Amino acid sequence: MTDRRDNPSGEDSLIARYFRPLAADPGAFDLGDDAAVLQALGDDIVVTTDAIVEGVHFLAGDPPDTIARKALRVNLSDLAAKGAIPAGFVLTLALRAADDAWLASFARGLAEDIDLFGCPLLGGDTVATPGPLMISITAFGRVPGGKMVRRNGAKPGDRVVVTGTIGDAVLGLDSLKGGAVATALAGDAAANQMLVGRYRVPQPRSALAKAVRDHAHAAMDVSDGLAGDLAKLCAASGVSAAIDAQSIPFSAAATALLGRGTVGIGALVSGGDDYEILCTIPEASFELFAQDAVRAGVAATSIGTVIADTSPPRFLDGQGREIVLARLSYSHF
Amino acid sequence: MTDRRDNPSGEDSLIARYFRPLAADPGAFDLGDDAAVLQALGDDIVVTTDAIVEGVHFLAGDPPDTIARKALRVNLSDLAAKGAIPAGFVLTLALRAADDAWLASFARGLAEDIDLFGCPLLGGDTVATPGPLMISITAFGRVPGGKMVRRNGAKPGDRVVVTGTIGDAVLGLDSLKGGAVATALAGDAAANQMLVGRYRVPQPRSALAKAVRDHAHAAMDVSDGLAGDLAKLCAASGVSAAIDAQSIPFSAAATALLGRGTVGIGALVSGGDDYEILCTIPEASFELFAQDAVRAGVAATSIGTVIADTSPPRFLDGQGREIVLARLSYSHF
Repeated sequence: MTDRRDNPSGEDSLIARYFRPLAADPGAFDLGDDAAVLQALGDDIVVTTDAIVEGVHFLAGDPPDTIARKALRVNLSDLAAKGAIPAGFVLTLALRAADDAWLASFARGLAEDIDLFGCPLLGGDTVATPGPLMISITAFGRVPGGKMVRRNGAKPGDRVVVTGTIGDAVLGLDSLKGGAVATALAGDAAANQMLVGRYRVPQPRSALAKAVRDHAHAAMDVSDGLAGDLAKLCAASGVSAAIDAQSIPFSAAATALLGRGTVGIGALVSGGDDYEILCTIPEASFELFAQDAVRAGVAATSIGTVIADTSPPRFLDGQGREIVLARLSYSHF
Repeated sequence: MTDRRDNPSGEDSLIARYFRPLAADPGAFDLGDDAAVLQALGDDIVVTTDAIVEGVHFLAGDPPDTIARKALRVNLSDLAAKGAIPAGFVLTLALRAADDAWLASFARGLAEDIDLFGCPLLGGDTVATPGPLMISITAFGRVPGGKMVRRNGAKPGDRVVVTGTIGDAVLGLDSLKGGAVATALAGDAAANQMLVGRYRVPQPRSALAKAVRDHAHAAMDVSDGLAGDLAKLCAASGVSAAIDAQSIPFSAAATALLGRGTVGIGALVSGGDDYEILCTIPEASFELFAQDAVRAGVAATSIGTVIADTSPPRFLDGQGREIVLARLSYSHF
């Protein structure tokens, strides 16, 4: 489509320059219409929406391409945890000003993730705001009818499983803010860079979506801290859980900071921005699930068991004693 | 779902109190999961997203229930213009603080419109912002496969049709800002209230969606001013149009203000926030379309003709002379 005659407004011109090239899906109509078409192809459409705000979910100085990636990936993480395959997304961008260098970098990061995750841009809205930047994304996925994985299906005896590693992002944020982690890692640029990367660019476990759908009784993504999100999953399912804290997967960098006392386990399991999948898998399926995870290239670690109880989930140390999380939280966080 | 054990965060508690009651659709899972399910029921899903920002799309002093209605209705207006029947929406709310009275009023307005338009809340996200309030909605509709009405199908000979009346909202905004309209209408509270209402609470023409789908070659909603939006529709369709300015439907209040010289026609046809449907109907179908519009209770007025040309659409006065819109714009706007 060429806007050869109408006088494009600033918004139209901005969309044409930076975002039209990202909208290759035929249902996006080159962003030249008022709406997009999403075909269900016989499946259920899974819908999730998450916004990120400057100064709250990302920092003003974060590179624009990582801001774009984070905005999309926090939504892709939800889709993966629900067992859904990405189908597309719409984007609302609230900007103070249309800065070309910023927008070019933002669009480049978004374009790379659109290709990487096969999730086309279907539409959007750009608005001016005098306030902080905000990116709101609504993302769509497909699951066979009735097969979205809920939070509320965990059963006593299920294994509690988490992907990747826990707590890196909160350490990366502390480092970016010049906190204790920055001091502790002053001599270790590689570890510091890894942790900052985990904060800025989540790794949605899209490759595990089908295995979650095939095997999990319940699943959600860990975005507000493992402990709190596990409590939500247990409450929704009417169960409790016993977590073996020694089994929780921590990165080498996090383990070193734990060992040095820079951070406590409480801060790691209650920090946010992990964007890993938390799910419960029946014992009988666990081996198959683990094999699927290996094939998908996603680390999946069994960290405890669902139990028939109505108390909050408990985190237990090597001697089976309950870890009181609040007391173990590192005060900086 | 009862969150009987987990400690609900502020956001969880706010969602439970104000928004869970609005999420009656089974696919919303009582807002207790990470995602919703939207069933296509064999149709195409039409997706549209529009955000409104305090100070830009609504005023800080606007009643919260009208802000909620406007946020939803600007999206419903897009769905109607595309020929789609509402299927649901997700809401992102960026708030400075969780003010109970404000939220209660906002949720009440939203609840009433959810019922009125049969468009259930499916999910959402609430974020804190130090900046202006912002409400971003992504709304979904259904059309039979391939039947979404595009902007780009207008054909020479089609009638150009617009619903309702044009220009009221821009007059209402001027009145709210204490401009010339406020002065001119100081003695006419009813007219003033009507115009302000047109700015604050758009009237999406959802009842006309099926007629648009059945008869229109091209359609879009008028949100950025009739003149500019018609130019976009013509550009997308590769045609031009001749508009009889005397046929454009103006309310009695707008007509009176035109007559007194408070406002010029240019301001009315280039003002925003009309949220009426602009469509082109082949001459052979016009009578049937007009009958459908009567049955739907929506005023639909033929204002001109699509012509085979590549120049911008022209607005003609009673003597067939072209009205140069910029010159006729009232300077206040």
